[in-house]
Amino acid sequence: MSQAKYVYSFGGGDSEGDAAMKNLLGGKGANLAEMAKLGLPVPPGFTITTDVCTEYYKLGQSYPDAVGAQVKTALAQLETKVGKKFGDAADPLLVSVRSGARASMPGMMDTVLNLGLNDETVEGLAKLSGDRRFAFDSYRRFIQMYSDVVLGLDHSVFEEILGIHKDTNDYQSDVELTAEDWVAVIGEYKRAVERELERPFPYDPQEQLWGAISAVFSSWMNERAKVYRRLHDIPESWGTAVNVQAMVFGNMGETSATGVAFTRDPSTGEKRLYGEYLINAQGEDVVAGIRTPKALSKAARESMNEAGPSLEEAMPGVFQDLQAVFAKLERHYRDMQDIEFTIERGALYMLQTRSGKRTARAALRIAVEMAEEGLISRTEAVLRVDPASLDQLLHPTISEGYKRDIVCTGLPASPGAAVGVVVFDPDEAAERAQRGEAVILVRDETSPEDIHGMHAAKAIVTARGGMTSHAAVVARGMGRPCVCGITEMRIDMKGETFTARGRTVRKGDALTVDGSQGEVLAGAAEMVQPSLSGEFATLMQWADAARTMKVRANAETPEDAAQAVEFGAEGIGLCRTEHMFFDADRIAAVREMILAERQADRVTALAKILPFQRDDFEKLFEIMGDRPCTIRLLDPPLHEFLPHTEEDCEAVARATGIDAKALLARARELHEVNPMLGFRGCRLAIQYPEIYDMQARAIFEAACNVAARGAVAPVVEVMIPFVITQRELGDIRARIESVAAEIAREKLCTLACTIGTMIELPRAALRAGDIANEAEFFSFGTNDLTQSTLGLSRDDSGKFLTAYVAKGILERDPFITIDQEGVGEMIALAVERGRAARPDLKLGICGEHGGDPASVAFCQRLGLNYVSCSPFRVPVARLAAAHAALANQT
Amino acid sequence: MSQAKYVYSFGGGDSEGDAAMKNLLGGKGANLAEMAKLGLPVPPGFTITTDVCTEYYKLGQSYPDAVGAQVKTALAQLETKVGKKFGDAADPLLVSVRSGARASMPGMMDTVLNLGLNDETVEGLAKLSGDRRFAFDSYRRFIQMYSDVVLGLDHSVFEEILGIHKDTNDYQSDVELTAEDWVAVIGEYKRAVERELERPFPYDPQEQLWGAISAVFSSWMNERAKVYRRLHDIPESWGTAVNVQAMVFGNMGETSATGVAFTRDPSTGEKRLYGEYLINAQGEDVVAGIRTPKALSKAARESMNEAGPSLEEAMPGVFQDLQAVFAKLERHYRDMQDIEFTIERGALYMLQTRSGKRTARAALRIAVEMAEEGLISRTEAVLRVDPASLDQLLHPTISEGYKRDIVCTGLPASPGAAVGVVVFDPDEAAERAQRGEAVILVRDETSPEDIHGMHAAKAIVTARGGMTSHAAVVARGMGRPCVCGITEMRIDMKGETFTARGRTVRKGDALTVDGSQGEVLAGAAEMVQPSLSGEFATLMQWADAARTMKVRANAETPEDAAQAVEFGAEGIGLCRTEHMFFDADRIAAVREMILAERQADRVTALAKILPFQRDDFEKLFEIMGDRPCTIRLLDPPLHEFLPHTEEDCEAVARATGIDAKALLARARELHEVNPMLGFRGCRLAIQYPEIYDMQARAIFEAACNVAARGAVAPVVEVMIPFVITQRELGDIRARIESVAAEIAREKLCTLACTIGTMIELPRAALRAGDIANEAEFFSFGTNDLTQSTLGLSRDDSGKFLTAYVAKGILERDPFITIDQEGVGEMIALAVERGRAARPDLKLGICGEHGGDPASVAFCQRLGLNYVSCSPFRVPVARLAAAHAALANQT
Repeated sequence: MSQAKYVYSFGGGDSEGDAAMKNLLGGKGANLAEMAKLGLPVPPGFTITTDVCTEYYKLGQSYPDAVGAQVKTALAQLETKVGKKFGDAADPLLVSVRSGARASMPGMMDTVLNLGLNDETVEGLAKLSGDRRFAFDSYRRFIQMYSDVVLGLDHSVFEEILGIHKDTNDYQSDVELTAEDWVAVIGEYKRAVERELERPFPYDPQEQLWGAISAVFSSWMNERAKVYRRLHDIPESWGTAVNVQAMVFGNMGETSATGVAFTRDPSTGEKRLYGEYLINAQGEDVVAGIRTPKALSKAARESMNEAGPSLEEAMPGVFQDLQAVFAKLERHYRDMQDIEFTIERGALYMLQTRSGKRTARAALRIAVEMAEEGLISRTEAVLRVDPASLDQLLHPTISEGYKRDIVCTGLPASPGAAVGVVVFDPDEAAERAQRGEAVILVRDETSPEDIHGMHAAKAIVTARGGMTSHAAVVARGMGRPCVCGITEMRIDMKGETFTARGRTVRKGDALTVDGSQGEVLAGAAEMVQPSLSGEFATLMQWADAARTMKVRANAETPEDAAQAVEFGAEGIGLCRTEHMFFDADRIAAVREMILAERQADRVTALAKILPFQRDDFEKLFEIMGDRPCTIRLLDPPLHEFLPHTEEDCEAVARATGIDAKALLARARELHEVNPMLGFRGCRLAIQYPEIYDMQARAIFEAACNVAARGAVAPVVEVMIPFVITQRELGDIRARIESVAAEIAREKLCTLACTIGTMIELPRAALRAGDIANEAEFFSFGTNDLTQSTLGLSRDDSGKFLTAYVAKGILERDPFITIDQEGVGEMIALAVERGRAARPDLKLGICGEHGGDPASVAFCQRLGLNYVSCSPFRVPVARLAAAHAALANQT
Repeated sequence: MSQAKYVYSFGGGDSEGDAAMKNLLGGKGANLAEMAKLGLPVPPGFTITTDVCTEYYKLGQSYPDAVGAQVKTALAQLETKVGKKFGDAADPLLVSVRSGARASMPGMMDTVLNLGLNDETVEGLAKLSGDRRFAFDSYRRFIQMYSDVVLGLDHSVFEEILGIHKDTNDYQSDVELTAEDWVAVIGEYKRAVERELERPFPYDPQEQLWGAISAVFSSWMNERAKVYRRLHDIPESWGTAVNVQAMVFGNMGETSATGVAFTRDPSTGEKRLYGEYLINAQGEDVVAGIRTPKALSKAARESMNEAGPSLEEAMPGVFQDLQAVFAKLERHYRDMQDIEFTIERGALYMLQTRSGKRTARAALRIAVEMAEEGLISRTEAVLRVDPASLDQLLHPTISEGYKRDIVCTGLPASPGAAVGVVVFDPDEAAERAQRGEAVILVRDETSPEDIHGMHAAKAIVTARGGMTSHAAVVARGMGRPCVCGITEMRIDMKGETFTARGRTVRKGDALTVDGSQGEVLAGAAEMVQPSLSGEFATLMQWADAARTMKVRANAETPEDAAQAVEFGAEGIGLCRTEHMFFDADRIAAVREMILAERQADRVTALAKILPFQRDDFEKLFEIMGDRPCTIRLLDPPLHEFLPHTEEDCEAVARATGIDAKALLARARELHEVNPMLGFRGCRLAIQYPEIYDMQARAIFEAACNVAARGAVAPVVEVMIPFVITQRELGDIRARIESVAAEIAREKLCTLACTIGTMIELPRAALRAGDIANEAEFFSFGTNDLTQSTLGLSRDDSGKFLTAYVAKGILERDPFITIDQEGVGEMIALAVERGRAARPDLKLGICGEHGGDPASVAFCQRLGLNYVSCSPFRVPVARLAAAHAALANQT
């Protein structure tokens, strides 16, 4: 059996690894090897693999036998490459020891620099460098860092010593210390270590090395690393690699420097050198922030009105080398790079390269420009932009530097930010908005009767409700920022104030709502308006070419429908007709219908609603043209349309002339313990078929009227909600078809119309085979399907769902991303059974999940025909669908 | 190809059919053929098969070609057998034409007697019978019946003619009409027919015969037959047969008679001749009720103090013949028979035999006695008793003759009947009951806070709620009769009255509640107390020997547990610990726990509840001995334990000293839109683990204490509700195990204890494979699983569920019988996945369905280990489980 290879050398002419070996060598190690292979100036070194990390923990924090020998061999090779000896008093090899995992975990694990120094080798370094102060400064830095990282000694011990030394000598800053000062400090340091740990600071460079290696492997399991992994879904099993690399020094005088750079602007994506450097400094000095780094290029320096010389001016030769390296790296890695470099006495060394993090705006521009430069394909460009990040581009945001004065925080229920004055009453919101005021609507929770106020408001804030509460869903649909579930907020509706964190906000006070962050801020923040760039359109076009699923929008109003079309929706996937029932001019007729005791009276009341509904549909069909429109017939329980309290009933009675007692009696009669599982959806139509008759009539008459007026005939899909049996759908279908036939005769107009159902209850999913006999399409109502499959009310789950996700009991909020193991299996079952019964069954999804990239990917894997989401999520869904299609190709 | 056989002859020495051919010949036809084969005196005839009926409808109400010829042949054979000719003026053959389907459909279809009479043949009959009045009376009866059944003429036409004739002659009753009167009436009848139908009454016997045959086939599709079939699950495709049989006459004078009999008493099951007869009468006279039939035996006559002679006295020879026939038939059919016979001039003829309908009491006695007589096996005896019918035997009932004065009707939510005075307040119910008064508790709906009043009441009546509402479930558990969902009832709680059907009932008025029928009666009805006979014990013993599933009871109180043991429960399948939280002496501590803001305060409050819970469990374990007890930890949302309205909060505050505002605030905070899908079950324990800690401690301490006192150690099964992920169960399981270990150390006591979960949500069923890794048993909570799978709130579905079942959209109420296609598949999936992960997983069901025979059969097919139901359903479940096991053997 050949021995496992645990150590990979790089630099100095040869590299055993390359960029493809990230899993084994970690990101840093793999890229160092790759850069060396490219012929770039990389200080040589070796990488101890992630496998060793895994083994290390398996063996109870000790190493596989072969590791020691392999490190020894690699170290010997390294000595040969740099022509120095580890521990050699005259010409000592010094190394850095750094962690490097498969995924970037910035700052989570530990690093030791200048390793190999002791009382002898420091003298060699002093002689070789010709700079005694530099050598002893390096030595004391090493002792500090090593003691902290490897020996676990609190750094305050050293700060205290240094402080006393500075006080004694009346020094203001570290630069004033001479070489001899450092020698004295080092003596104190070493005594302190021995006193605290009851053993001397390790003298032997070999012992130092193994101490550092073990410390890095151990840091994989420190608390902050564990938390970071949990937050970023990084498996513990991946482990980290350890990189041991010959030291180069950016702090060897005025011809030395250290710096970081991006090959393009990570904020805007502009193609220009972007970065900063410090002369005569080690990397940690940049981080410490004591000195201010300078711009790399002259142009950048000038644009920022900086004093000092740019690298371009200070070291023109090195600058040119650096530019060449950048070009080479971008060409090679085919992506914007984030680079660390050191200049030692005029010579450039590369210490790290990796794909650079960037803003959504930059990601978009870089992807499009790189594709246009021919560096990457259009497919790659599409895959380079995270669909979820588009949200940032579509909404106003608070400007980056703005200092936030947080009043309270809640759930980031609908993205974007807005400024306005506080209003508690939806009617007042509507009135003030009409006068041109920007208002923020604050409510305990919202209900369908608040819709006009929500529409009028710039943003919505609620004390109760989760990510899929009424407020959240409606706000997302309207593209209004919304923060909800603010448990720390106490609203006094009568006094028109709310308090949070001891502060009281009154009606009329200015607030800023950041729906992306879930923050409510005092005052009016500075805002940045979104501007959709040309790159946006280009990328979306490429995405559209790549995807196979259609993207539709959930919309009922003409405004939403127009917005949806603008954002590229290819149809309406869910038009909730009940939203049309709440308008002031028709709610009276709706209530009359609900109060009617005889069918004839219901029919009379419904006849009053008919013209309104027909008009709604005509407007919708005109906007949507030949794009399909899925219209869901009445779904909510009837009590949602009635006032509930005695006072409300009396108010309605006064306004409409309907008897208050009858209203209250009917409201009580219709009251439900669990309305989610109640008398709603098609159950209403089984009991009162005349309701769907009216709606069907409104739909078909509208379609015929629009077809008669214009060139394109609307493509209508009638959707029946809350079905659990084939019979329900069959009975209702027959009535709708007879209404359609009647109107076809009356209007001499034939229409393309299909009839289908929502699959939103487990029984419907299980019986999908039967139900498909009556359905031309299924639309998965994943909100309700999640509620029923998990037994989880979206209105009530706020109390514990956050804890469930935090504890990892549920991987993600199932109302945001489809719970694939539960709800997902339900959908998969329904897809399989539905298609088996009717191979050409059209399948889509119209829950809130339709705009969630992970859920979109799941829909692609299931072979759905389309996803539908709120208008502002349409671009996200288009890009996510492209990603999903491309992922499925491989 | 051989021709299909459509007509089967019987009687007169040979029979082409037999009892096994019920599907083809119908029940009546098959049994006539069988009796003839047995050598019993059956008037000969022939049966036209049910296939003809099916073909008749397929061919648009006409006959397959071969039928005509086969009827002709059969009729010729019949003429030979009886030595008369059809239509012969001198010696006419007369026939009856009767329907006879596979299943008994009494009175649903049509019959024609005396067919073959016309103006000529009636003279032959007169001469042959020597009774001219008899002949013409028969003729006029034929015209009436034929006109009604075949010609569709309303019988009022004939009643009017007869009425005028009687008035004219000053006759009081039909018997006063002479032969000549009948001749005159017949003349009028025929003229009336011709006038109404514009064609004469059919003269030709062949035409008469085909008219009657077609009328019988057509009556298969009349409205009342359709309704009956729907109510009794009889498929339309079965069709009916038609029996054409030579007439015999029970109305040929004093030596003729007609009668019906049961071979045993259908009411008590006693083995004695039971039946009645009428001298000189046709069957229809018995039905018409003009004359009172007499008892068959002398003993029966004497016991009823009847005047007239019994058949035994009037015709001793015939009586002996009849007894012999009865014995022969019982021996042959191995079941109690329901018989029709006619005596024509001293000769006995059998016209029908079939298995007789009987009361539950009779069924039980007959089954056991027949098995003891060796007539049937014990297995057959077990299968002869309908499990559902046992309910009648276990509860008091209203005596049969009692004239019911119905106040209102609702759902038959819990069987049995009770008498008491109306009370609207649960506290008052408890007080009055303590004073020894029998009370009926009337509420809009009940909640857990009403439990003491429900327990105190003899019966419960609610205006709202379905078959599985709180009132219904609790009442069944307690064995209290309950009628709920009385939509026609309007309660005035303040005035303490209710009104229904225009009548007002006041507090203190006496009422009778029939929970088996769903009726509320005015006044105190006469009651029959249940008495469990020796046969009951015998049959249950045989059933227990036959069944393979265990039967447990759902019980929490000592009373219920004792009742369950008495009814043969083999353990507790569901002990709902929250029911123990409502007692007056602990609800204050429960509320203190709910109001606590810090964990430490919750722990303090829980410590107050601990001794009560421990005491509850000790009592339970002592009663149950070594029978397993499944104890479910706290399940309902916490708000169920708080008062909800401002007034209630103030009342509680006054009584307990808890702050009213804090109570109200917490109640509002915990309020849920859909409590069924809310913060409940194990979700509470994930948030507040100390609650289950306390409950686990109470259970284990109680078990140790009982074990220390007595010989048997309790067998404890701890059940975690509302689980949807493996992690929930794993986390909670670990804490419970550590509590158990702690108590084992404290008390030096080791206990057999298993931990399992309820499967009551679709996700739990889908993830059963994972969950089984942490569960030693699953108990299917089919109530909640039905609610979530069907999206159907059991509290709210009353509004439409009845209509759904009536329209056949759902086959049965899914809260009564498991919806096998939906919920059933969920259970099947969970069983398969659970057992795959853990082959020795114990599986049971603890929903209301555990006492429903159809659901029990389903559980048997799935291979569950036990069913659990309310104590009063235990005998039903035991017998149903035996049926299911026996059905599964074949």
